This record gives sequence, structure tokens and C-alpha cells, in this order.
Amino acid sequence: MPHIDLPKGAPGIVGPLQQYPKTAKHLLGLAQELLRGESTLTPGERELIAAYVSSKNNCYFCTHSHSAAARHLLGDNTDLVEQVKLGLVSARVSEKMKALLHIAGKVQQGERSVSEEDVARARAEGATDKELHDSVLIAAAFCMYNRYVDGLTTWTPSDEDLYDRHGARLAANGYVVR
Amino acid sequence: MPHIDLPKGAPGIVGPLQQYPKTAKHLLGLAQELLRGESTLTPGERELIAAYVSSKNNCYFCTHSHSAAARHLLGDNTDLVEQVKLGLVSARVSEKMKALLHIAGKVQQGERSVSEEDVARARAEGATDKELHDSVLIAAAFCMYNRYVDGLTTWTPSDEDLYDRHGARLAANGYVVR
Repeated sequence: MPHIDLPKGAPGIVGPLQQYPKTAKHLLGLAQELLRGESTLTPGERELIAAYVSSKNNCYFCTHSHSAAARHLLGDNTDLVEQVKLGLVSARVSEKMKALLHIAGKVQQGERSVSEEDVARARAEGATDKELHDSVLIAAAFCMYNRYVDGLTTWTPSDEDLYDRHGARLAANGYVVR
Repeated sequence: MPHIDLPKGAPGIVGPLQQYPKTAKHLLGLAQELLRGESTLTPGERELIAAYVSSKNNCYFCTHSHSAAARHLLGDNTDLVEQVKLGLVSARVSEKMKALLHIAGKVQQGERSVSEEDVARARAEGATDKELHDSVLIAAAFCMYNRYVDGLTTWTPSDEDLYDRHGARLAANGYVVR
């Protein structure tokens, strides 16, 4: 049972977004800009950061939704997203993505935990200021979305097909308010 | 030194907001709606939640800025904001505010830590669905803003007068993009 009255049958963040449209507008606008806006990181790479941070925050709804979105966007028929969530060292992603995901994980922990060495490693792999900025802000934003979903104890279905369909819609349509 | 190139002399979140206006638009719009939008919680009470969560995240810039904003809005010549940050039991705020601040502190910890008992206690003191929603989302949002500020290691002055002036501006003008 969610802590507040929310539309029935709307899973995870969908319920509070529907019930509270004045904040939803900004929450969706931010997600659209961060995950689909102009960037040298692909939407799939950015969804991977979102899924990774959500898994570190143990947010079931966000982890499964954004993992599915990343799989659809990356054309991933393998277990790439699962690999990343299990550990960065052996995951089959670029060294730049490993360095950015490592920074995102530090941001999830909070405070000033991102070190100069972390940033130097990402830059050595070609990361730009904008990519560093976006990785930090995507990680920070999912520390918000995850807490919004779980702080209200929203409905969290366990049906994997539901997340696959939800991820496919996010891959196709993004986060634009309709 | 910030991890990325930011405007010189712009403290805390001000630098990345200036440098990255496409995300700033949504970050400021969300803050304006949450902290100044229509609500039965006063702007001062909402800034108090922001300051409390920022202090739990050890974010120096946000804690000092929003403490100053809360003091200006609450007309607080006492140490009310400091009391709240030190502990809720003996702080001179309403029982409803204590219950909402307690929930905000749980949201800061993350996961599904807000209990039915926490919510029941707030409701018994008169908290509405909208007040519960806003308290959860303010807490979640400051887990983002705090990580944005500290994940980039932005410039953090220690001059108390600067925060008092910044807080006075936030109290007077809010977060509208100009």
C-alpha cells in the first residue's frame, strides 16, 4: 500500500507523476533532457547509468524499468546491463563508460566522494566536461527518483514482462509529457 | 577546484546552473514548485526541510544557503534552524513539522525506510496527502541537489555573510529563472 492515495494500477513513479502534475512536469522535463537531450553519450549509455545507480539504491521499479530501456536502446540481447550491475571491472563496456559509471557510483554514495583520480581516469579515456557533468547529474537525479518511488512505497509489480514493455516505451518515446 | 570548468566566483550550485542552462531550467522549476508553489506548508517550513536534509547529506553549501533562507522566511531570530539540525525531539517546531522532518530524514537514508507508523504519526498531527508527498519529494530532490553540488566539488565559500545574503535573495525571489 502506498503511503498516500495514488491512481490504482499505476506502477512505481507513474502514480505520483499522474497525481501531482505540477511537479511531474519538471521531473519529466529533467529526465528527458538528461537521458534523451543532446549528448555525446548515447541514450542507451545514459539509461545504463540510470539503471546502475538505481540498482545501488535498491530501487526495484527504477532498476527494472531503466535496465529494460537500456537493453532496448543498446540492442542488447546479452546480459550487458546485468554485468554492469554486478561489477564494472569485467563488464563489456568501453573504458570511458566504466570510468563514468564508477563516478556515478561515487555520486550515489554522496558527499565529496568523487576524487581527482576518478575524474583524471575518465578524462584519460576521452570523457569531456559535458559527459562528466551529465554522468554526475544523472546519478544525482536517480538518487531523487529512486527515493520518490520508494519513500512513498509505490506499487512495485514483479512481472518482468511489464518492465520489458515499459522499457520499450521509454526507449521509443522518452519522457515527454503528453 | 571543481571537477569541470565552471564560471569563476559562482558558489555551489550557481556555477553548474549557469554553465548548463538546459538542465538548470528544470532544476530551478522543480525547486520553485516544491519550495514556493501552492502548499499548506509555508515556504519557511519547506526551506527548513531542505536545510535539514542538506545537513544530513553534509552538503555545506546547500545547508548554509537553505538555513539562511529558512531563517529569513520564518523571521527566525533564534536558533530554530540549528535546533532542528541538532535533533527533532526538543526543537521548537510543531508536532506536525517534527513528524514531516522525521519522514524527510528517512527519505534521505533511502530505500523503503519510511514506515506506516511514521506516516500515521504525521497524519495524527494533521498532515495531508499533499504535505506528505511534498515532504518526501523535497527530501528526495535535495538528495539530488546536494549530490550535484558535491559530486562536482563546486566552490564552497565559508563566509557566513555570503550565505545570509544568498538566503535573503532566495527568500525574496525564489528560484524563478530570470
